Amino acid sequence: MCQSCAPKVNGTAATAVESAPLPPLKSQYEVKYDPERVLKAPEYKVLQDGDDELTNGKSNIACAYDEKHNIKMINKPIPKAREGEVVIRVRATGICGSDVHFWKHGQIGPTMIVESTCGSGHESAGEIIELGENVTQWKVGDRVAIECGVPCGQANCDMCRTGRYNACPQVVFFSTPPYHGTLTRFHAHPAAWVHKLPDSLSYEEGSLCEPLAVALAGLERANVRLGDPVVICGAGPIGLVTLLAARASGCHPIVITDLQESRLDFAKKLIPAVRTCKIERGWSPQETASEIKKISGTNIKFALECTGFESSITAAIYSVVFGGKVFVIGVGPSEQKYPFGYCSANEIDLQYQYRYANQYPKAIRLVEGGLIDLKPLVTHRFPLNKAVDAFHVAADPAQGAIKVQIQDL
Amino acid sequence: MCQSCAPKVNGTAATAVESAPLPPLKSQYEVKYDPERVLKAPEYKVLQDGDDELTNGKSNIACAYDEKHNIKMINKPIPKAREGEVVIRVRATGICGSDVHFWKHGQIGPTMIVESTCGSGHESAGEIIELGENVTQWKVGDRVAIECGVPCGQANCDMCRTGRYNACPQVVFFSTPPYHGTLTRFHAHPAAWVHKLPDSLSYEEGSLCEPLAVALAGLERANVRLGDPVVICGAGPIGLVTLLAARASGCHPIVITDLQESRLDFAKKLIPAVRTCKIERGWSPQETASEIKKISGTNIKFALECTGFESSITAAIYSVVFGGKVFVIGVGPSEQKYPFGYCSANEIDLQYQYRYANQYPKAIRLVEGGLIDLKPLVTHRFPLNKAVDAFHVAADPAQGAIKVQIQDL
Amino acid sequence: MCQSCAPKVNGTAATAVESAPLPPLKSQYEVKYDPERVLKAPEYKVLQDGDDELTNGKSNIACAYDEKHNIKMINKPIPKAREGEVVIRVRATGICGSDVHFWKHGQIGPTMIVESTCGSGHESAGEIIELGENVTQWKVGDRVAIECGVPCGQANCDMCRTGRYNACPQVVFFSTPPYHGTLTRFHAHPAAWVHKLPDSLSYEEGSLCEPLAVALAGLERANVRLGDPVVICGAGPIGLVTLLAARASGCHPIVITDLQESRLDFAKKLIPAVRTCKIERGWSPQETASEIKKISGTNIKFALECTGFESSITAAIYSVVFGGKVFVIGVGPSEQKYPFGYCSANEIDLQYQYRYANQYPKAIRLVEGGLIDLKPLVTHRFPLNKAVDAFHVAADPAQGAIKVQIQDL
Amino acid sequence: MCQSCAPKVNGTAATAVESAPLPPLKSQYEVKYDPERVLKAPEYKVLQDGDDELTNGKSNIACAYDEKHNIKMINKPIPKAREGEVVIRVRATGICGSDVHFWKHGQIGPTMIVESTCGSGHESAGEIIELGENVTQWKVGDRVAIECGVPCGQANCDMCRTGRYNACPQVVFFSTPPYHGTLTRFHAHPAAWVHKLPDSLSYEEGSLCEPLAVALAGLERANVRLGDPVVICGAGPIGLVTLLAARASGCHPIVITDLQESRLDFAKKLIPAVRTCKIERGWSPQETASEIKKISGTNIKFALECTGFESSITAAIYSVVFGGKVFVIGVGPSEQKYPFGYCSANEIDLQYQYRYANQYPKAIRLVEGGLIDLKPLVTHRFPLNKAVDAFHVAADPAQGAIKVQIQDL
Repeated sequence: MCQSCAPKVNGTAATAVESAPLPPLKSQYEVKYDPERVLKAPEYKVLQDGDDELTNGKSNIACAYDEKHNIKMINKPIPKAREGEVVIRVRATGICGSDVHFWKHGQIGPTMIVESTCGSGHESAGEIIELGENVTQWKVGDRVAIECGVPCGQANCDMCRTGRYNACPQVVFFSTPPYHGTLTRFHAHPAAWVHKLPDSLSYEEGSLCEPLAVALAGLERANVRLGDPVVICGAGPIGLVTLLAARASGCHPIVITDLQESRLDFAKKLIPAVRTCKIERGWSPQETASEIKKISGTNIKFALECTGFESSITAAIYSVVFGGKVFVIGVGPSEQKYPFGYCSANEIDLQYQYRYANQYPKAIRLVEGGLIDLKPLVTHRFPLNKAVDAFHVAADPAQGAIKVQIQDL
Repeated sequence: MCQSCAPKVNGTAATAVESAPLPPLKSQYEVKYDPERVLKAPEYKVLQDGDDELTNGKSNIACAYDEKHNIKMINKPIPKAREGEVVIRVRATGICGSDVHFWKHGQIGPTMIVESTCGSGHESAGEIIELGENVTQWKVGDRVAIECGVPCGQANCDMCRTGRYNACPQVVFFSTPPYHGTLTRFHAHPAAWVHKLPDSLSYEEGSLCEPLAVALAGLERANVRLGDPVVICGAGPIGLVTLLAARASGCHPIVITDLQESRLDFAKKLIPAVRTCKIERGWSPQETASEIKKISGTNIKFALECTGFESSITAAIYSVVFGGKVFVIGVGPSEQKYPFGYCSANEIDLQYQYRYANQYPKAIRLVEGGLIDLKPLVTHRFPLNKAVDAFHVAADPAQGAIKVQIQDL
Repeated sequence: MCQSCAPKVNGTAATAVESAPLPPLKSQYEVKYDPERVLKAPEYKVLQDGDDELTNGKSNIACAYDEKHNIKMINKPIPKAREGEVVIRVRATGICGSDVHFWKHGQIGPTMIVESTCGSGHESAGEIIELGENVTQWKVGDRVAIECGVPCGQANCDMCRTGRYNACPQVVFFSTPPYHGTLTRFHAHPAAWVHKLPDSLSYEEGSLCEPLAVALAGLERANVRLGDPVVICGAGPIGLVTLLAARASGCHPIVITDLQESRLDFAKKLIPAVRTCKIERGWSPQETASEIKKISGTNIKFALECTGFESSITAAIYSVVFGGKVFVIGVGPSEQKYPFGYCSANEIDLQYQYRYANQYPKAIRLVEGGLIDLKPLVTHRFPLNKAVDAFHVAADPAQGAIKVQIQDL
Repeated sequence: MCQSCAPKVNGTAATAVESAPLPPLKSQYEVKYDPERVLKAPEYKVLQDGDDELTNGKSNIACAYDEKHNIKMINKPIPKAREGEVVIRVRATGICGSDVHFWKHGQIGPTMIVESTCGSGHESAGEIIELGENVTQWKVGDRVAIECGVPCGQANCDMCRTGRYNACPQVVFFSTPPYHGTLTRFHAHPAAWVHKLPDSLSYEEGSLCEPLAVALAGLERANVRLGDPVVICGAGPIGLVTLLAARASGCHPIVITDLQESRLDFAKKLIPAVRTCKIERGWSPQETASEIKKISGTNIKFALECTGFESSITAAIYSVVFGGKVFVIGVGPSEQKYPFGYCSANEIDLQYQYRYANQYPKAIRLVEGGLIDLKPLVTHRFPLNKAVDAFHVAADPAQGAIKVQIQDL
């Protein structure tokens, strides 16, 4: 399950309700992006093999999950740009673990539930093809990355007003139910929430800025700095993006852990200076920590935990020095055990990341500046009308995929 | 169990061993304060009722626990001031929860074990009566508070060199086994680790600066600030000192919780503006959190957890706002369950305090400046030769003691 | 000159222009609060003694300065609440140094110039008397403090989106030319930018929350903490509010300086624990610093500079310890000399405050919680139709005013 | 003039004297490294061309400046390792701007004055050839970098105890008068203040870790982070090391300024992604800032000022965005003018670096990890007996030297 889609569990909204004047009942975006506008449109249709829409290159087809755990292609109306909006011809979209999770399990956390057909995808880049009224900062043909979490932006929303907009209780996050995602051909989006791609970045790279934004948000809040020794737990897509960002931050040494040798090999190819730690099933967290410390050879200040598993988090805790920090980017089971006594006697800080705010411009800058090379992460590419196949590859561990992309060039 | 005595659990020392050049095997203080120097001295003796040493007002009597869970008076040699030392006539000493814990349970954490008779007490103030060689900053008659954790201070100790000396792996903490404590008549101490009491502070207040230092260390690292809404979990001695310090920091509103109405009444008398939350047995953490939030009436940024209990920590997590922090000053069971999913979806930071560093001068300054009034905390006072009685009062919840002091004026 | 009105000097806007996509040419607020709507209204009129509007208690009279350095009463149209707005019956307004400065000098910084008649006042509280469309969080009769700086709030404004809205290049700050101020009877304001006053706060106190917000913003960014020794330079209105806030933060000792004994006496009455330092004309900054250090008796970590004068800032620099900070809240001449070598060899941080963001709720909370008592600051009170007299008192140092208020109850 | 040698100006010592109990009059290091022990030794001698000591490869020759502005070779006794010391066969030493400044001008700041012959050099690495008593962490043959600032380390020194040891008022900084430097053949040093070089680092690189430590201290305190746009003012040795460290930190874009095209070319060869800004004499600071902003193309958050000149610092101030920071690593004239009004209206932070603390291990780690390549910085190499020639090259701008090293391999 991935960070950018992780829902807020019960209680957050409640907190807001009890303690502060509320924003209006529905934000402008909740109204604008009401999924019923798609599902009740005359053009709406679940597509079957052989349907013309799949191959004509013009229809607004999309890949969606539903409450019966189907993954399927649908046809949607082609959006018109309303006031303050741009319409984007989506060119590249990555599949995130949460997309797969919504398909297979229909739910993340207690509140985000797939209750009807819902379009997938939130790692996207594309080309602006239409401008709504009052959109002056863009022109048709601009190439952009799409930031999929659109907060309410109201001055009386504490989180929006104080710059922590990932916590907005009224955020519209495309692909988190009920809002349709961006794995589609045409997508209407608020003009203020897309980010210009420099010529040197491909759409593929623009799409990968989304998982990079997750890692950057984590590193920024963790306060990882030049020369800090770190361990990264887990060499999946988020772990690998975190590795790229940690190296670009000047962390050293960097130890990365995983159960699979092949993922560690992939990490080593990305960043040759990384030190890999193959974890054996059956090791206690203390044994894992001891191995990590041996490989590191110096006191580790930060563990960047990208799995969300209790055993991995516990090993992370045991692996950092007095005063160190375990920063959890991964999402895992809602309740876990942890070694309180050790944390207390060693002043171990535990922190967590929930999506991201203000990271896209930085992500793009870093890729443009040659500090982070995202391209090797894409291991599989599919055309838009084969998006269902792409999902099957992404969901099958035996395929060894890191990042599966749908490209509609 | 209290902060200032909490031992480091296994692993910390191990970390240091594996990763950095070690300081010499024994620090100068480990050698100087070797408990064998007391236990093998000719003057050493376990005292019985009626022994002259108990009443002559001159002998260096002390209150000690042993490996058989006895609490008893002993006689020790009267120390001479060595190079860099002062000898202090101890005038006031508070009993800490950890003193009681060592007596009753003989152990805190996996490494701090009462293996033979060990003098208690680490909350002390007194009068300098003798100066060792090269001690120029003090004179006989100076009134001082005693900082009981004496770190190695070596330049190649990472923790000492970087100012985080509470983490020194070679610290001598008086009253943590095996080092004899300061609940005694005469105590020899490194001259650099005592702090001048202004005329306006009594010895009793000087002694109370120790638990205050714990709270101040917590508030400083938690980064609690003017105007922050906080909840303090637990109205025992550490909770109440934390309350005083939080109010002096300008926190508002402050909610304080406890299971006992009488402790909440005590809190209310200390700080009339505090809002009390009586927790009922049987409440779920969510119910407790909901009540705390209702009483607070605004988003709570910090929970200052002073009990160490899993249910209380969990309630603390549920009571703070997105991006809030649960700062644990209390010490509790070594392994606990916690709501990972909620922490992750709400970016709840968890932090812990281990003893303190660089807090004594500030503690004294705050009391002198009238910002914190510690005097109401002392509920019971005993003479030194009745220290065993004092321990029995401190250990019996029915007595309703907050702080029990032994005063030898 | 005061913080909340200080204009941005040339270059800031330029920076924004060169480096980022711009928000639309005019923000919605720049359009809504265009001063021409007042100046060209049929009701607009410069009032003369004896005019009925001055005494009928119903007209929307206001006190304004103009480009010829007149201070005068004008009549304005009574506003209607538009979408998202409330109309407020203003009850109390304080006169700020910048109001006087605009009157007397017609300009602050290179860009804020009085070019025609402009209503004064930005320290106001009042009662909501009308609600515009879509205003759901307020009801008629609610008592509120008015936050006078209204930023554009657009997602593509970097400063607004990241929570630093005091830096919004399109802010409408009422009373900073060309926008009319709140020293008037009826004022229309965005509903999201007023703050509820609890029953326990008077309008007078609500009005004083504005200068308090300036001090709180400074203390928050300066990172002043419990137990920090500080010096406050200058015992004028901002210095005194800073004193109240520093004491509420638990700073100790606090030294306050001024050239006038009477202001120091006022400070001492506000906070008896403060230590006063009467500066003599002719002292060098080093002499002043030496006196401050002697009075403090301990190393000073923070100088909170509230005068903006070069000699005072220089003395502040010399008075703090290695690694200390001089935080400048006062506004002064645009170019100054300072002791670079001393700053460099002692790692002295220099920081500055420009208006405030996110401080009003905290200000109100602190007053409500009894941590800050603003009431003694008001030394003179005038009815609305005598606002011109009030300005003359505020502008005359011989009157010894701290805060002059206009109250229209 | 360089950071690591910059003296504290009058007042720091005074502050300490007035406010806190003092450490003993002389630290152990002040006594141990009393220069009289060299100058009064029978072996001491000013060397002349042709003297055998210059060529026998065995004598403890050194390069020294004196109060008459001579630069000369001297012969010193060969030190024996005392308790806690190691003797080092120095292998590589860089010449720092401050070495040249002491030679030519005889003084830095008001207190550091060359009053008699004083050995130069503080950027050194070498081999341990002898161990004093109680030195257990080293063995003969270990290769080490030498940290030349040795603080008193006493628990009652506030700066040492809190980890800010660069501010210790009793520091012995080798090569800062009166303490002899490390540009010599044999040097006795406290064992705790040398740092192990991994096999992959040459002595040359070990020596360069000293200027790197200066830059790292600056970046750490400036809080420069991944993706931050920065400008570096000045492409001299400190500017170039700062460039390497800023790139390793992931800053982007990085603009570097200088008056000399050749230095900018050098910068470009070091870090091809850097953007260079050739400053023309006669430009106003605003013009320079405007050019920097144009080249940057985005809002600059940090200016890392490495020249210390008023015009450059002023340009730096104008080049950063609202809320940005100008961090001054360079050392310049003791009094300067700066644009107060602009700083105030744009919340520009000014910070300064004084030497460094806790940076050597990180410096070595970064070079070992391949994140920073220091080798290109050395443009000239001389044998030890030609050190005077090396000084003449370092002092002559026409030679275009970046870093001149003396190597005694």
